Amino acid sequence: MEITRLEPKKRQGLVVVITGNGKGKTTSAMGMALRSAGHGLKVCIIQFMKGDIYSGEWDGVKLLGDLVELTATGKGFCGIQGNPYPYEEHRKNAQEALLLVAEKMASGKFQVLILDEINNALELKLVDLDQVLSILAQRPPELHLVMTGRSAHPDIIAAADTVSEVCEIKHAYRKDIEPQPGIDY
Amino acid sequence: MEITRLEPKKRQGLVVVITGNGKGKTTSAMGMALRSAGHGLKVCIIQFMKGDIYSGEWDGVKLLGDLVELTATGKGFCGIQGNPYPYEEHRKNAQEALLLVAEKMASGKFQVLILDEINNALELKLVDLDQVLSILAQRPPELHLVMTGRSAHPDIIAAADTVSEVCEIKHAYRKDIEPQPGIDY
Repeated sequence: MEITRLEPKKRQGLVVVITGNGKGKTTSAMGMALRSAGHGLKVCIIQFMKGDIYSGEWDGVKLLGDLVELTATGKGFCGIQGNPYPYEEHRKNAQEALLLVAEKMASGKFQVLILDEINNALELKLVDLDQVLSILAQRPPELHLVMTGRSAHPDIIAAADTVSEVCEIKHAYRKDIEPQPGIDY
Repeated sequence: MEITRLEPKKRQGLVVVITGNGKGKTTSAMGMALRSAGHGLKVCIIQFMKGDIYSGEWDGVKLLGDLVELTATGKGFCGIQGNPYPYEEHRKNAQEALLLVAEKMASGKFQVLILDEINNALELKLVDLDQVLSILAQRPPELHLVMTGRSAHPDIIAAADTVSEVCEIKHAYRKDIEPQPGIDY
């Protein structure tokens, strides 16, 4: 059996949104990073509200060499129980992350840009809708833009090419199973 | 800000099912492989019905070195338009893949076992429910088992710890955009 190698007649950047309340949004974005690296594409990942807790993908992407760059920004999820930082600090972190997004997008060095948890950051008003729409407007047509996080804004969904909603059917933590490395973080 | 490093009091293997009709099931499994590799865990991926069309994850996982092993089995999706192989051949391929699953699980070499598209293979009767339940029964308690594919069987969902359903809200192919490397394959 011969292996088919697809190649689209036209390569074009897609806007992909992964939202919903289930497990597998950031995970899915990491899968796209892995798959893109397999194609030799360069990937930039910017995580919002995630600089406080180590997650395996931080070291996982290092194994992919200089094809994938990951920056975790922020100090955890704004407003959730146990997070000690005030709203203003979360907003400042997210606003700084937006500057980084603009810089990376303008660099022309990447074929894939992943904005992890930006939907959440928008929902929590750490970034504004017009700021996110401005990223979409400035996106070079050949750049893939992946946006993850719960509660994606309807205007972002409207602007996207592919949108998946990841719904929780069940989750181990509801049985009091602690998060497990590799699967949950 | 100090970075928190979680460590569960008890490490235990989870059964994770990623199902639904949307984009991001195999992708999510690849993200778990990347994240697991970041933790230094060893991962075995066996893909059902997928040996016919190249996908970027085949080379992506190679970048992760000997932490992740991927075997693509089969000759594409059974019964879909354009697939020239008879049901019997698809079933034979899937049955051989099950032998490989048993072998890899018994080897004790892996902390994560990903059975990509096995839900589909079950739905299409390329494997039988009792065969999949037998994998679950033989799973060592510390092994994470990830099963992807549409139409997960209710008995598999019942046996799982974490189940996500990825629902299509929209997909680029409906606008006649061809699959793009890195994002779609």
